Amino acid sequence: MTDVCLGDVTAQLGGELIGPAERRINRIGPLEGATPSTLSFLSNPKYQSQLAETQAGCVIVAPAFREAAAARGAAIVTDDPYLYFARLTQWWARRERPAPPAGIHPSAVVAPTARIGREVRIEAFVVVEDDAVIEDHAVIGSHCVIGQGARVGHSTRLAPRVSLLHGCSIGARGIVHSGVVIGADGFGFAPHQGQWVKIEQLGKVRIGDDVEIGANSCIDRGALDDTVIEDGVKLDNLVQIAHNVHIGAHTAMAGCVGVAGSARIGAHCTVGGGAGILGHLTLADHVHVSSMSLVTRSILQPGLYSGVFPIDDNKSWEKNAATLRQLHTLRERIRALEKKLMP
Amino acid sequence: MTDVCLGDVTAQLGGELIGPAERRINRIGPLEGATPSTLSFLSNPKYQSQLAETQAGCVIVAPAFREAAAARGAAIVTDDPYLYFARLTQWWARRERPAPPAGIHPSAVVAPTARIGREVRIEAFVVVEDDAVIEDHAVIGSHCVIGQGARVGHSTRLAPRVSLLHGCSIGARGIVHSGVVIGADGFGFAPHQGQWVKIEQLGKVRIGDDVEIGANSCIDRGALDDTVIEDGVKLDNLVQIAHNVHIGAHTAMAGCVGVAGSARIGAHCTVGGGAGILGHLTLADHVHVSSMSLVTRSILQPGLYSGVFPIDDNKSWEKNAATLRQLHTLRERIRALEKKLMP
Amino acid sequence: MTDVCLGDVTAQLGGELIGPAERRINRIGPLEGATPSTLSFLSNPKYQSQLAETQAGCVIVAPAFREAAAARGAAIVTDDPYLYFARLTQWWARRERPAPPAGIHPSAVVAPTARIGREVRIEAFVVVEDDAVIEDHAVIGSHCVIGQGARVGHSTRLAPRVSLLHGCSIGARGIVHSGVVIGADGFGFAPHQGQWVKIEQLGKVRIGDDVEIGANSCIDRGALDDTVIEDGVKLDNLVQIAHNVHIGAHTAMAGCVGVAGSARIGAHCTVGGGAGILGHLTLADHVHVSSMSLVTRSILQPGLYSGVFPIDDNKSWEKNAATLRQLHTLRERIRALEKKLMP
Repeated sequence: MTDVCLGDVTAQLGGELIGPAERRINRIGPLEGATPSTLSFLSNPKYQSQLAETQAGCVIVAPAFREAAAARGAAIVTDDPYLYFARLTQWWARRERPAPPAGIHPSAVVAPTARIGREVRIEAFVVVEDDAVIEDHAVIGSHCVIGQGARVGHSTRLAPRVSLLHGCSIGARGIVHSGVVIGADGFGFAPHQGQWVKIEQLGKVRIGDDVEIGANSCIDRGALDDTVIEDGVKLDNLVQIAHNVHIGAHTAMAGCVGVAGSARIGAHCTVGGGAGILGHLTLADHVHVSSMSLVTRSILQPGLYSGVFPIDDNKSWEKNAATLRQLHTLRERIRALEKKLMP
Repeated sequence: MTDVCLGDVTAQLGGELIGPAERRINRIGPLEGATPSTLSFLSNPKYQSQLAETQAGCVIVAPAFREAAAARGAAIVTDDPYLYFARLTQWWARRERPAPPAGIHPSAVVAPTARIGREVRIEAFVVVEDDAVIEDHAVIGSHCVIGQGARVGHSTRLAPRVSLLHGCSIGARGIVHSGVVIGADGFGFAPHQGQWVKIEQLGKVRIGDDVEIGANSCIDRGALDDTVIEDGVKLDNLVQIAHNVHIGAHTAMAGCVGVAGSARIGAHCTVGGGAGILGHLTLADHVHVSSMSLVTRSILQPGLYSGVFPIDDNKSWEKNAATLRQLHTLRERIRALEKKLMP
Repeated sequence: MTDVCLGDVTAQLGGELIGPAERRINRIGPLEGATPSTLSFLSNPKYQSQLAETQAGCVIVAPAFREAAAARGAAIVTDDPYLYFARLTQWWARRERPAPPAGIHPSAVVAPTARIGREVRIEAFVVVEDDAVIEDHAVIGSHCVIGQGARVGHSTRLAPRVSLLHGCSIGARGIVHSGVVIGADGFGFAPHQGQWVKIEQLGKVRIGDDVEIGANSCIDRGALDDTVIEDGVKLDNLVQIAHNVHIGAHTAMAGCVGVAGSARIGAHCTVGGGAGILGHLTLADHVHVSSMSLVTRSILQPGLYSGVFPIDDNKSWEKNAATLRQLHTLRERIRALEKKLMP
């Protein structure tokens, strides 16, 4: 277990330390359940009341809570406690799990024409095909497949069991979680006499820098042009990105989202879990879609959009759902009443 | 093909046999389509009429159907025919596919510091990292990754291509299907100047005994504390469990369910396919959620909850959906009429 | 980069060439953004106006557009331009990425009792278990598992990291994308004293000819009988097919669809992304389900069916959703008004 003193923390991460620099903590944790060896944080003012009660050995707070936090013992004061907390977890993770050593496991099958950068780690049972490029400091987890001509950017880490298929690329400092498939064929067929004739998918997937992709998510290659994921995009687990989708920079999508072909999503958007976006639509920058809503038309104005049937006890739902199927008729009846009453 | 006599069945599994103990059957099957060598069962009284017509060589029935079943030939009478059927399939499966032999495939890469129990089977191309623990009688399918310090309990079976990542654990007698990812990073970021700063996920996943996890499902590690799946939980395929979720004992979730971060689900709950549960909510024990419903608030009373737009032919749906977008206005119009009419 | 002349194209694929046979093109692309070395196509008359503006070196058109296309330079005239385009991509793909050579990678673990056909390719780290059958010209991508007694048909290609588990089969000319799991256990349990008793899944998965299955999709084995996917079915990514489902020929399902146990889907159906179909239902041939709709009852008439809450700006949605929860009451109020006004 890692054990650090508060002075080490602020020496690394900045912030104003109030209280004993030599106090030692061995855990980062929420205010609730904290112990004297826990370093905690208050990022949301609505949890302010927990500040008085927590047993945490130190609390990271915004300037507004300086006095309250200091009064109860040690505090680190910083403009953005949540950001400070994020950076703290990064420093902590590097201490707890130092980067594993570089090197190519003897079981890996690396094509002679592949170009492998400096300080790269390639784990057991990896396949790197012809003309693939692995840039410096990249990590390729066990059982990954790096297809022909694919490219992994500087310091990008692939967890075990990732497929980055032929010609696809990801930029620098990316994180790809286990089970991800990048570059499977898009879903394209021409109907012909009741059957489907395959449209070979000739495009690629191009992913920018600082992108994170969650476990078992899929990003299909484009039909003719490429599928594009811009810098800083974050995708959660089990997300489906169809062929020729374009996702703007710093957009984030929660788990189980599906985006259909050729949709064009702006930058700085967020999409809630399980939501869907139909094909060929455009979403402007800063559009936010609620969980499990289906976007059926382009959205050109920033804002929050929702469309989900409100959950209820089953009996009430049944009554309302049954009525809903006659809603159009209800409107006609209201109209008839209005005509009669207010002609 | 397995071929057993009815006397063997009741010797193994109990129940009262009516009819010839030496009659041989070679298949378990539903009443419909059964042949004289089929052992069938009647668990739902609504299929009672099939009893007279089935060609099954023997039918497992509840006491209430003793006479009807006996009249047509052999029967096994038991209090809970469906439970009997379940146990019959277990016995049958052990006969048809005996457990493969223990042993470590020579291609597996097992760290010297890993602890491997007795009678463990580790298949081809498995990676077991430092300090991992595989308890007695466990089976690790080909291409699995058992991360640093991870633990697989007694008699638990991992199908091929499972990732159980560093520090995560599963208890005894579990079944994990192909493609599952346990312990990928939770989806956590601090927003900063329009970009996302990663919150390293320092927690683990802890899974209890007798848990089954369906193909390509994902269970993320906790941010600070752990993600917890209690004993007897059953998850179907393509289920997404986010960081710090807590699922109570014997809860079951059907395919494609998504549970967002820090949700706390009770014991003995069921969640229908494709349903979603938002983050930080609480579900009491014995809550049942209908397929494709989105739980947007805590549910503290047991019961069945639903929220899904009723399907209709597209033309009717279009009319009702269009009216739905003005529903609030309709209410106002009703109110106006009421005021006029019943002041 | 491939570089062909128009005469080669029509020599291979037919169609009437208008213009210079020696003109060279090196890219297939949409009308918009085309260059003089692009071969483009007009399949949807609504893009007709692009025909005059495009820079494409040649355009594939229907007879109705013969003059318009010829006037601007080269054209290929054919009855079904989209079908022609599909076949063009197939020819193009074979030129750009010729089939990799047959052979068994030395790292593959192939059981001596497995039967491997002629001109089969088995890539690195593949496991082929006892009594499995790989027919002629099949390709088994790296890290695939072909379970005991499983069968891969003639010319079928499995991408890397596919599980085809014991006893399951796929026919000829199929394509299975990375991460697919065929033959995991169906989700079947008998409830007993608040716990779940596993029903061993004794059936298999049988998949016909010319089937394509998208990345990370799952098809479960049947409980007693088999799960069946008929010829020509196309499944997109992250699709879940439960035990004992039967999917008729040439049906297509988009990404993230879930089909529950024992549903029987007709032939020539289409299911939109994220839609769900409950268990034990029947869908007739030529039924089409809109994206994210939940089918809760059998549909015996061909047609398009929908059921999804229309998306709206969040404020409007909130008001309408709140009203929706009292919809039944609104109907009662309308009825009361009607009684008063039109007794």
